[in-house]
Amino acid sequence: MAEFDLIERIRSRVPSRADIVLGIGDDAAVVRVPPDRELVICADTLNAGVHFPLDTAPFDIGWKALAVNLSDLAAMGAQPAWCTLSLSMPGDDPIWLDSFLDGFLELAGQHGIALIGGDTTRGPLSIGVTVHGLVEPGRALRRGGAQLGDEIWVSGTLGDAAAALALLADDSPEPGTLRIAASNLTALRERLDRPQPRVAVGLGLPGVAHAAIDISDGLWSDLGHLCRASGLGAVVEVDALPFSPALSQAFATEARRTLQASGGDDYELCFTAAVSARAQVEEIALHAGTSLTRIGRMVAGAEVAGIVANGAPWLPARTGWVHFSD
Amino acid sequence: MAEFDLIERIRSRVPSRADIVLGIGDDAAVVRVPPDRELVICADTLNAGVHFPLDTAPFDIGWKALAVNLSDLAAMGAQPAWCTLSLSMPGDDPIWLDSFLDGFLELAGQHGIALIGGDTTRGPLSIGVTVHGLVEPGRALRRGGAQLGDEIWVSGTLGDAAAALALLADDSPEPGTLRIAASNLTALRERLDRPQPRVAVGLGLPGVAHAAIDISDGLWSDLGHLCRASGLGAVVEVDALPFSPALSQAFATEARRTLQASGGDDYELCFTAAVSARAQVEEIALHAGTSLTRIGRMVAGAEVAGIVANGAPWLPARTGWVHFSD
Repeated sequence: MAEFDLIERIRSRVPSRADIVLGIGDDAAVVRVPPDRELVICADTLNAGVHFPLDTAPFDIGWKALAVNLSDLAAMGAQPAWCTLSLSMPGDDPIWLDSFLDGFLELAGQHGIALIGGDTTRGPLSIGVTVHGLVEPGRALRRGGAQLGDEIWVSGTLGDAAAALALLADDSPEPGTLRIAASNLTALRERLDRPQPRVAVGLGLPGVAHAAIDISDGLWSDLGHLCRASGLGAVVEVDALPFSPALSQAFATEARRTLQASGGDDYELCFTAAVSARAQVEEIALHAGTSLTRIGRMVAGAEVAGIVANGAPWLPARTGWVHFSD
Repeated sequence: MAEFDLIERIRSRVPSRADIVLGIGDDAAVVRVPPDRELVICADTLNAGVHFPLDTAPFDIGWKALAVNLSDLAAMGAQPAWCTLSLSMPGDDPIWLDSFLDGFLELAGQHGIALIGGDTTRGPLSIGVTVHGLVEPGRALRRGGAQLGDEIWVSGTLGDAAAALALLADDSPEPGTLRIAASNLTALRERLDRPQPRVAVGLGLPGVAHAAIDISDGLWSDLGHLCRASGLGAVVEVDALPFSPALSQAFATEARRTLQASGGDDYELCFTAAVSARAQVEEIALHAGTSLTRIGRMVAGAEVAGIVANGAPWLPARTGWVHFSD
């Protein structure tokens, strides 16, 4: 397939939106931004073997490439609108492409975001997505807005994706790994391959949360960004961190805590809000159908998050980035 | 360097714009689109060894990655505004990165486009850029607006970039290659490495041109897109195609014609306008400081461009894509 055939194959499958003046097929796309909205833009790239295991199904690659970008929009409190896709593929494989598009477009459809352009190139498998969202002026959530005494919340559960990665890395089994039931392995792997961007939660947060970030590199790392941007510290109770049944069945306590505190790829939201906002946060959780859990509090002083277990300092076995390979 | 250091290195060098609410450093950027403008978006990726020779200087890679995207905005008649950069690099090399940024930011500064975000990943060298521009509502130039009897114009000169590529490909010398003076080789290579996006020409075209496209894959190929989109044919006089002194000194007539008609990577604009618009087009050329040359006319019937030499049909020795390797 030449580039034009690829583009035609993509164009034929893409639904439109009323605010698209010109979609796929010209030198550029043209869209209308409502006068009462600001435009939120971010770009994230996934490279094969770095950001997803080489054996990942094409449907899941398509899903995840969009999901990690929608997660950034969610962390800003933005409504998804349009995206571009830059797809680098080593060869011509229409079956792979169709399956990739199945995943990409299924998630796009769930969030009403339209693919309006991009390009296809020959090269190692790499997927670059740029997403555009809309927020009311001045209402975009930032990392730097946390206030002293704010409570810290996270969506969903933590550590599942990193657990799946750890189980895939045969040569470096996690300490504490138990015999894994197939159903648990499937559940963990699904969290790695098909993260659910917390768009509905994000849309509820402007006016309620003071600061937000999405957890792509691990809570420890990403909450650290939020702390530094806000000029505050954080104290997190490690046993307050939410976990899935699959995670607790597959890993002993210390390994589980480490995965929850420092494992990446969960794409959950972490945000802070005043104590007085608890009822509003619980309303958002109910409305979004996503659990939101209080895990700690913003404090003065330290620039990085402190994690405690029963009041004593607790350190994960390793920190930061947990990607498939480096 | 970790990703955060890379991002800090980039952020410290990037100028802002008054319409940027939030720039590099959060989960996403936030910008304000004026209520009386439509938003033009496009994304193009350059892969090492495919879209530029492996020996290309990092300054030129940075320049070209932005230039090819600005060229698309120019073809839409859009004013450049903001861009994101997705940079995949095989290793940590701050000297390479600084030089890359020198090229990227020099061109960005010339056109007032601000870098507002993106990401850095580990992988084979690949540069994905998404650019955003602004146009008055309904004034974006399309490929499909050409009218019967329109004259066809191109900016600058054609064939230089493809000539540089042909001269680099030692194993497949172009028929007609002469002994190349070093100064001509330098001039041709500069056209390949530092294309000049015709932004000023593009900004003059709305209301004057009926259709436009940028020439990235070769005139033959790109004018063909314009023809199909417009439902018209085109007749081009091959000896009307503009060429540089370096090209004519380095290649005999037939090889030169072929490079002009079908060589890619020039990033000139091709557009159509009514005969009555000649004076306006010449005014645009004068104002932009870029030559604009009439090369043919839109005709009924054929879906692809016909090229003639002295009234007789002429075919290039090869058509389409001329990239460094495939």
